[in-house]
Amino acid sequence: MSGRLRFGVIGAGRIGPVHAENLAFRVPQAELAVIADLRPEAAQAVAARCNIPRMVSTGEEVLADPGIDAIVLCSPTDTHADLIVAAAKAGKHIFCEKPISLSLKEIDRALAAVEAAGVKLQVGFNRRFDSNFLRVRQAVASGEIGTPNLFHIVSRDPFPPPLSYLRPSGGIFLDMMVHDFDMACFLMGEEVEEVYAAGAVMVDPGFAAEEDFDTAVVMLRFKSGAIGTVDNSRKSTFGYDQRVEILGSKGKIATENRYPNQVVVSGEKCVYSDLPFNFFMQRYTDSFAAEVQAFTESVLEDKPVAVTGTESRLPVVMALAAGKSSQERRPVRLSEIHA
Amino acid sequence: MSGRLRFGVIGAGRIGPVHAENLAFRVPQAELAVIADLRPEAAQAVAARCNIPRMVSTGEEVLADPGIDAIVLCSPTDTHADLIVAAAKAGKHIFCEKPISLSLKEIDRALAAVEAAGVKLQVGFNRRFDSNFLRVRQAVASGEIGTPNLFHIVSRDPFPPPLSYLRPSGGIFLDMMVHDFDMACFLMGEEVEEVYAAGAVMVDPGFAAEEDFDTAVVMLRFKSGAIGTVDNSRKSTFGYDQRVEILGSKGKIATENRYPNQVVVSGEKCVYSDLPFNFFMQRYTDSFAAEVQAFTESVLEDKPVAVTGTESRLPVVMALAAGKSSQERRPVRLSEIHA
Amino acid sequence: MSGRLRFGVIGAGRIGPVHAENLAFRVPQAELAVIADLRPEAAQAVAARCNIPRMVSTGEEVLADPGIDAIVLCSPTDTHADLIVAAAKAGKHIFCEKPISLSLKEIDRALAAVEAAGVKLQVGFNRRFDSNFLRVRQAVASGEIGTPNLFHIVSRDPFPPPLSYLRPSGGIFLDMMVHDFDMACFLMGEEVEEVYAAGAVMVDPGFAAEEDFDTAVVMLRFKSGAIGTVDNSRKSTFGYDQRVEILGSKGKIATENRYPNQVVVSGEKCVYSDLPFNFFMQRYTDSFAAEVQAFTESVLEDKPVAVTGTESRLPVVMALAAGKSSQERRPVRLSEIHA
Amino acid sequence: MSGRLRFGVIGAGRIGPVHAENLAFRVPQAELAVIADLRPEAAQAVAARCNIPRMVSTGEEVLADPGIDAIVLCSPTDTHADLIVAAAKAGKHIFCEKPISLSLKEIDRALAAVEAAGVKLQVGFNRRFDSNFLRVRQAVASGEIGTPNLFHIVSRDPFPPPLSYLRPSGGIFLDMMVHDFDMACFLMGEEVEEVYAAGAVMVDPGFAAEEDFDTAVVMLRFKSGAIGTVDNSRKSTFGYDQRVEILGSKGKIATENRYPNQVVVSGEKCVYSDLPFNFFMQRYTDSFAAEVQAFTESVLEDKPVAVTGTESRLPVVMALAAGKSSQERRPVRLSEIHA
Repeated sequence: MSGRLRFGVIGAGRIGPVHAENLAFRVPQAELAVIADLRPEAAQAVAARCNIPRMVSTGEEVLADPGIDAIVLCSPTDTHADLIVAAAKAGKHIFCEKPISLSLKEIDRALAAVEAAGVKLQVGFNRRFDSNFLRVRQAVASGEIGTPNLFHIVSRDPFPPPLSYLRPSGGIFLDMMVHDFDMACFLMGEEVEEVYAAGAVMVDPGFAAEEDFDTAVVMLRFKSGAIGTVDNSRKSTFGYDQRVEILGSKGKIATENRYPNQVVVSGEKCVYSDLPFNFFMQRYTDSFAAEVQAFTESVLEDKPVAVTGTESRLPVVMALAAGKSSQERRPVRLSEIHA
Repeated sequence: MSGRLRFGVIGAGRIGPVHAENLAFRVPQAELAVIADLRPEAAQAVAARCNIPRMVSTGEEVLADPGIDAIVLCSPTDTHADLIVAAAKAGKHIFCEKPISLSLKEIDRALAAVEAAGVKLQVGFNRRFDSNFLRVRQAVASGEIGTPNLFHIVSRDPFPPPLSYLRPSGGIFLDMMVHDFDMACFLMGEEVEEVYAAGAVMVDPGFAAEEDFDTAVVMLRFKSGAIGTVDNSRKSTFGYDQRVEILGSKGKIATENRYPNQVVVSGEKCVYSDLPFNFFMQRYTDSFAAEVQAFTESVLEDKPVAVTGTESRLPVVMALAAGKSSQERRPVRLSEIHA
Repeated sequence: MSGRLRFGVIGAGRIGPVHAENLAFRVPQAELAVIADLRPEAAQAVAARCNIPRMVSTGEEVLADPGIDAIVLCSPTDTHADLIVAAAKAGKHIFCEKPISLSLKEIDRALAAVEAAGVKLQVGFNRRFDSNFLRVRQAVASGEIGTPNLFHIVSRDPFPPPLSYLRPSGGIFLDMMVHDFDMACFLMGEEVEEVYAAGAVMVDPGFAAEEDFDTAVVMLRFKSGAIGTVDNSRKSTFGYDQRVEILGSKGKIATENRYPNQVVVSGEKCVYSDLPFNFFMQRYTDSFAAEVQAFTESVLEDKPVAVTGTESRLPVVMALAAGKSSQERRPVRLSEIHA
Repeated sequence: MSGRLRFGVIGAGRIGPVHAENLAFRVPQAELAVIADLRPEAAQAVAARCNIPRMVSTGEEVLADPGIDAIVLCSPTDTHADLIVAAAKAGKHIFCEKPISLSLKEIDRALAAVEAAGVKLQVGFNRRFDSNFLRVRQAVASGEIGTPNLFHIVSRDPFPPPLSYLRPSGGIFLDMMVHDFDMACFLMGEEVEEVYAAGAVMVDPGFAAEEDFDTAVVMLRFKSGAIGTVDNSRKSTFGYDQRVEILGSKGKIATENRYPNQVVVSGEKCVYSDLPFNFFMQRYTDSFAAEVQAFTESVLEDKPVAVTGTESRLPVVMALAAGKSSQERRPVRLSEIHA
């Protein structure tokens, strides 16, 4: 494929505008041709900001446009599978926000359609493109820290979402920790065999009424025997807390958060710095741009995508296993989870 | 009690000389009067170094000396209970290296003797006196970080002990993680209800033959609902790795390792600093001195000791529960563990 | 003024493409209409990259275009004054790379023309827009560190320019330290009264043949009595080294360099991280974008510019005084320097 | 010489007790036999704390004691030279607090007496024994950072001394910066040729009445051509601020302050840590012990001392040159300063 890749973005909610802006201003090989949202004013706002020539209401209209090469799927999770199937049939390449679905059956149906159509599908696990996590991956892959033995991810949001958000999201394991499950496999370069999950309601009692946790720790056993933990909280008052540490046979690698500046003040009572970036949009600005850049190049140059549909299925399996573990209060093997 | 406290040190192995040196040179209110060890040359070396006027072979000889006010018990773990009982009967105050025993029955027997005699007993969980961990404790106790929600301890030795050391030590949970279990309760200011333990052999296959792990992670559920993890490894190539992090409702507190200097070199390939202190003797130099200082003051001023026998029993219960959990591959409540 | 500001960029050398790209992709209110360079292939490369519809050879052609509202002046320093005068006459607003000229007379001539024409002129001291230095400025201005007493700037390039670059550049004080002189006044919020400069040739003996230094330290006396130092080197093997520290009556503020990631590896020999950003293009990416953004807004909203021509004259005076001081080996008051 | 070295400490003011305690408790080869002070209660306090068997009023009484091998001279600076001469005649080895004298003539007289008597003399520039500065010295000496080009020392006290202290102290250059001048030569491994000094009164106007500065910066030209700066302030509200940075042809080395703990709290408004050590007694605890340890070993093993009288003369020359420079407002070559 030559020339620029013509994109349609489906969904102008929270993440759609992020992808639209990146496609418009930061990916030279991309051309953003259409944006779809049921709410005209949402689509209008993005179109104005990003100089998008066309607005439509539905994803179907985007798929019907023969000038569109690829879609970026940012509609609600429960619409992903159908739109992927339709897009695949229409021969469009697909960048889909994570997760494809909360149901393994739906994921498998979508993946089968993609496979049958021979289009490219990349799933939006954008953290894989963060320069910190890339550096960790590189260290593990190159043997810089030897064989990984112990693994620890910290992943905490600055404040909880509205309670109404929780139930449709699938809960803390499927909505939030799914990112960390993807990171765990990506960084360690291997799969997880068993999880043990413990959840708690420490931040807001309202989570209990939604049958969800606001605090959770999951222990992972990797196939190599290595052990890891992931800890999530819906509230870290000081900002977005996203770190990882791996102990290997030859050394340890650890990442710190990103800060808006590198300034340290030594005052009369303490030595202090400003808080780290507050949320994912600041922390992962560059990785959001990099993932659509990579997807665009994969399509234009017919290269494998960075995050395949199959890879994106695994964290969902892990999340389902974690949910089961937290309910049954026992370790759960991934092989117990079926579509 | 007035004047200086007259001490006998029992055991001139690895930790005995540390206590002897601290009593001799760093605790002004202490007088080190006798050292006991079955190996005369070991006792002699310590006596010469610390200007100790008397050497004997056995703890019994120390206990028989009416001029001795207090003993520091550094003999092998399996001798502690008997010597505590004898010391209590002899009216000596007791500083005992951790743990009192690997058996809860033995611990209870020793504690009963101490109780009956009305002597003071302090157990050597020296890390409680480390300035880093004290600062963390203070932050939790004062509400500086709000209510603790998540807890993580890292505790890794620079290199594994000889395999012959393992079996008598009671294994990774009783020998190594017992320190972290004490820290967990001390720092959080509350007790643990349940543990889930996963062990692995990642460093040296010889651990498997000894039915021990060289790598272990334990998940803790505190009574408040807070969740924590402890990760241990017998080998961290870069030195002694001892850190803790607590996330509370108002903030996070985290400690870093100690380094021999605060020097950073920006070289041609990387920015680097020297490795952290290599082992517990460097890292915990000051906390070893502080704990015997505190014990001496507790006796002289008739104040409560910093680490009571009862407090020291709990980490042993946790270690036994962790061992059981790792064998049965299920979470174990502490209430399942009986003497 | 309403709508978007139509820009012409003059000069497609090193810094012209940076401004072009920012105007094209990162400043929504800007429209980049033309690029000028005597070398057609240089202009062509930028035009292609940034979708610029028109290329010309000379600045005069840009100025003759009635559709152009503002120019960005990136041609060699000795062409700045004439082009500013011409642009002012043509009623174009001017963003000029620093310095306007190495000659105070020329600067004054340019400023007079700008004044007479009533156009806006902003000079490219981009570091004022760096988030680190802005935070320092804010701390000083708000009284967060009290009254500033001591000031220290470190500013070091990763490698020296070609020797042929030196003489036309005006030497280390006019070419390199002029940035730091601007920072000194900007951050401290006051002017300098006297300088004492010491230069040395430590990096490359070729600098001596060019009557230049590759290493220099200048001591500044501010009007308030505060004292400061600036240290420059043409070679810091580990990357671009740009830091500032101010001691005030209530505290100290200090900045660190920026790094491509926040990863720390604890290896077998040392604890290390990757090198800081290598050069100004990586370190100051955001401040280059912010300065043209600010200029664009100043014109469109008719607000004062962030770096006025008068402000930009002062660092040149300081650089000339520093040169004189280093030659005469004595402190030189700025009042000794005349146009 | 065999056995333990028998010491007399002369002066029980601020620094005398520090040396006494180190000799008593931290230097095994030392025996502290006598303490002298005109104020009996001061001598008594130290004697009680350090178990010193004998107290006297004057240094002469110490020197008259044939059982004393070495003295530690902590009396006021203007008594040093006479006591050194007398001690040398009495065949006592001498550890003398810095500086020997504010007068080069007096220094030379003292050094001649030491030379004639063949006793050992070490001067108390304790910072040379600090693990941070030793590491810097090692990096320079070993070539780890290549040839040093630029040098910067920060040295700031937490609060100013009483104004009455200033005049007898010789002022900021002789009293305070003299330490940094010693560091400069020690760390760089070479001598300084010329200084340029600027002083200011920024902290307390009372300094002006005493013809002293509370803030000073001195620029140093080393014989190799390298340039350096030292900045001193009598007040850094956040604690003792003692750092050094050297840029070499292969890299940079920099030290940070020492902190009482390695704890970082991420709170609701900022990320903070406790203040660094507040004053020299906390920061340099270990280097004070190390310097008397080294002196003791030098005498017992007849090895060269770590800081010779001749080496200790140079910082005084530099301080005198700095004073002259600040008065005459011009660079001063060290060769202009004569005894």
